[in-house]
Amino acid sequence: MTSTEEVPVTEHKATGEEEDDEDEVTPWLVSSKSEKGVNYDKLIDKFGSSKIDDALLKKFEEVTGKPVHHLLRRGIFFSHREMDQILEIVKKGKDETVKEGKLKTVEEGKLKTVEKGTPFYLYTGRGPSSEAMHLGHLIPFIFTKWLQDTFDVPLVIQMTDDEKYLWKGIPLEETNRLAHENAKDIIACGFDIDKTFIFSDIENISSSQEFYKHMCQIQKYVTFNQVKGIFGFTESDCIGKISFPAIQATPSFSGAFPKIFSGKKDIPCLIPCAIDQDPYFRMTRDVAPRLGFKKPALLHSTFFPALQGAQSKMSASDPNTSIFLTDTDKQIKDKINKYAYSGGGSTVEEHKEKGGDCSVDVAFQYMKFFSEDDDRLAQIEKDYSSGELLTGHLKKELIGVLQKLVGEHRERRAKVTDELVNQFMTPRKLKYDY
Amino acid sequence: MTSTEEVPVTEHKATGEEEDDEDEVTPWLVSSKSEKGVNYDKLIDKFGSSKIDDALLKKFEEVTGKPVHHLLRRGIFFSHREMDQILEIVKKGKDETVKEGKLKTVEEGKLKTVEKGTPFYLYTGRGPSSEAMHLGHLIPFIFTKWLQDTFDVPLVIQMTDDEKYLWKGIPLEETNRLAHENAKDIIACGFDIDKTFIFSDIENISSSQEFYKHMCQIQKYVTFNQVKGIFGFTESDCIGKISFPAIQATPSFSGAFPKIFSGKKDIPCLIPCAIDQDPYFRMTRDVAPRLGFKKPALLHSTFFPALQGAQSKMSASDPNTSIFLTDTDKQIKDKINKYAYSGGGSTVEEHKEKGGDCSVDVAFQYMKFFSEDDDRLAQIEKDYSSGELLTGHLKKELIGVLQKLVGEHRERRAKVTDELVNQFMTPRKLKYDY
Repeated sequence: MTSTEEVPVTEHKATGEEEDDEDEVTPWLVSSKSEKGVNYDKLIDKFGSSKIDDALLKKFEEVTGKPVHHLLRRGIFFSHREMDQILEIVKKGKDETVKEGKLKTVEEGKLKTVEKGTPFYLYTGRGPSSEAMHLGHLIPFIFTKWLQDTFDVPLVIQMTDDEKYLWKGIPLEETNRLAHENAKDIIACGFDIDKTFIFSDIENISSSQEFYKHMCQIQKYVTFNQVKGIFGFTESDCIGKISFPAIQATPSFSGAFPKIFSGKKDIPCLIPCAIDQDPYFRMTRDVAPRLGFKKPALLHSTFFPALQGAQSKMSASDPNTSIFLTDTDKQIKDKINKYAYSGGGSTVEEHKEKGGDCSVDVAFQYMKFFSEDDDRLAQIEKDYSSGELLTGHLKKELIGVLQKLVGEHRERRAKVTDELVNQFMTPRKLKYDY
Repeated sequence: MTSTEEVPVTEHKATGEEEDDEDEVTPWLVSSKSEKGVNYDKLIDKFGSSKIDDALLKKFEEVTGKPVHHLLRRGIFFSHREMDQILEIVKKGKDETVKEGKLKTVEEGKLKTVEKGTPFYLYTGRGPSSEAMHLGHLIPFIFTKWLQDTFDVPLVIQMTDDEKYLWKGIPLEETNRLAHENAKDIIACGFDIDKTFIFSDIENISSSQEFYKHMCQIQKYVTFNQVKGIFGFTESDCIGKISFPAIQATPSFSGAFPKIFSGKKDIPCLIPCAIDQDPYFRMTRDVAPRLGFKKPALLHSTFFPALQGAQSKMSASDPNTSIFLTDTDKQIKDKINKYAYSGGGSTVEEHKEKGGDCSVDVAFQYMKFFSEDDDRLAQIEKDYSSGELLTGHLKKELIGVLQKLVGEHRERRAKVTDELVNQFMTPRKLKYDY
């Protein structure tokens, strides 16, 4: 996967071009000509996915018995494929369990839906091309952690170390080392070791016959023409890149993890990811019925903006484009104050008169991603738009939120030992029986 | 590999077309318009390999201290790439060993060249698409066994069960089972368990990190354009086929077998195979220097003719096109008498007057492959060409040779247990220290 690491590459708006229908979104390139970034509604049309609407959010809350995560409420996870069906399966399992008197408790919004197995499992991933993970990289994992807690299901996390070798030329030994390093940040998000398997492609393909067989099966039913159409590969691309999509598709099928699912090939899969990863899973969904497998369901997020705004690129080589998980309180403060693109007026007077533009203001956007307090966020939006709240004050509040978030992450990460990483990355049965 | 299983597909000579420069030779299709089959001299020009000439055979004998195998003497192994360099390495190792007083004995033509390591290793393979192996399938293994005995070096044998799934759609479980079944026939050729590792791709890729890493490295340095040019792949081919050549290339590099070569990446490789497999290794030789690896050397054989002649196709679905290793003495007799294409006259009188044509006579060709007696073969050629020896008598002699060969093979194969197959197929250190 690359979504958590390949961040928007944007181009400057060409004079006279106001259309945003030239957004380009692939796993390797995200570009938009609009200062608000990608037009996500148009992307839903283009990709053929479905908008996460109020009806779906309502169903989410009905089935889980608790409020949806703020990343859902605030439209950051904005698009899906067959999430309604996943909820239907969960609901059905719950109803049947209640009917049969098996459901003893629904503790704190955690469903105990079935006595054996789970209604689905979760799959997400990361492309380990750098040690420096930033705030944007956390989004899918924060959300996935909430899904795991809410539905009490297994989770597989793919670290595509082979992909990073193929695309970036980083030696395999190094991408594999980075996979282990990045796993520490992922584990620090709080995943339950009894429910979570993290794996490196290099290690897993070379230790699981079922995983390799599923790869072969997918590779047999996808042609060059298809990956050319979906990913834009050309004849000059190496055969490693051309066949890689099958490797990212493989974890979508429960049969690829016999130790977790006891060989069951029909456990539905739900994939939370950034929308740029959708091409992989469109391909996966195309090929699934031909192999007799279930299509994975998806939840898509928008992109996390760079400090310089939705049109800029976060870059590991320019530390001032994003907040890294290793940044100190002072670095966070300085970066937000210096670099966070402001949607406010250019003078205090102008700001007070015309108000700020929350839709392009990076500090406000970051608050939307990370502040959990809905009331406060609504207040900020109102006051900033009216001009009552100044950019400096908004930034100060954000700095506090981020210092707390990054500080706590840093503390948790420091406690993640190599031994714990190895435990998470060992192929094994999880707590669920199938 | 397919050479040992994909046999000549020939087309009837179109009227008025006398050129044989339309021979087509790929790992999946061998076709010729001539009744003598493929023009191998032209193939050497086309592929850019080197003819095995008298000078090379002489060097072979000088270095090994014994006569070359009849498959070399008789031009059945007719082409090579850098075999002269392999012999040079062996010679150099031998000279140095003699100089240092390390060479204690040269027993029965077996070289004890170096105290540690070996000057090179052998690699060959088979595509396990059928239980029914025929005489032609034995050729590379009979010859490889002789090479192993002569040079006392390790041998790796790749069973491309994944390839047979991708190309023929035989389920992976079945191609994997066939890999084990075919391994019995290969083991029955007499390979030394202390010097030989047989592996299925499905099993080995999913159990060896170094093998998978080498696959990735090759896949990174070969483009679609290259495999299109070399193998004729099209955009409609599946991505599994497109990336497969890297899997057949991988065993050419000693680093892919850390248990055998202790992680040494520079042990030269010699590949005996039918000439139709050369495209894989041309690609391998192209990519080797870019990865800092040594190019493998090759020895190429001609194709083994079908009973109906060099233009016909041996087919597993038509048992009368070849002699299978499971055929009874009676079946061998009946097939040779009924189906072996004769280069003799159409009547005894015509035969005695005009003589027979050994170059198209299948019985004579088979004698060239399997009879070890040079003097007798020369006599047969003389007498058959002159018309003195009748087709029936030639066939009778061949029947005797084949009944003995197949009978002995059958006996040896019956002794190969599943346990022994598993031992050969277990990744392990061989008898050589590196």
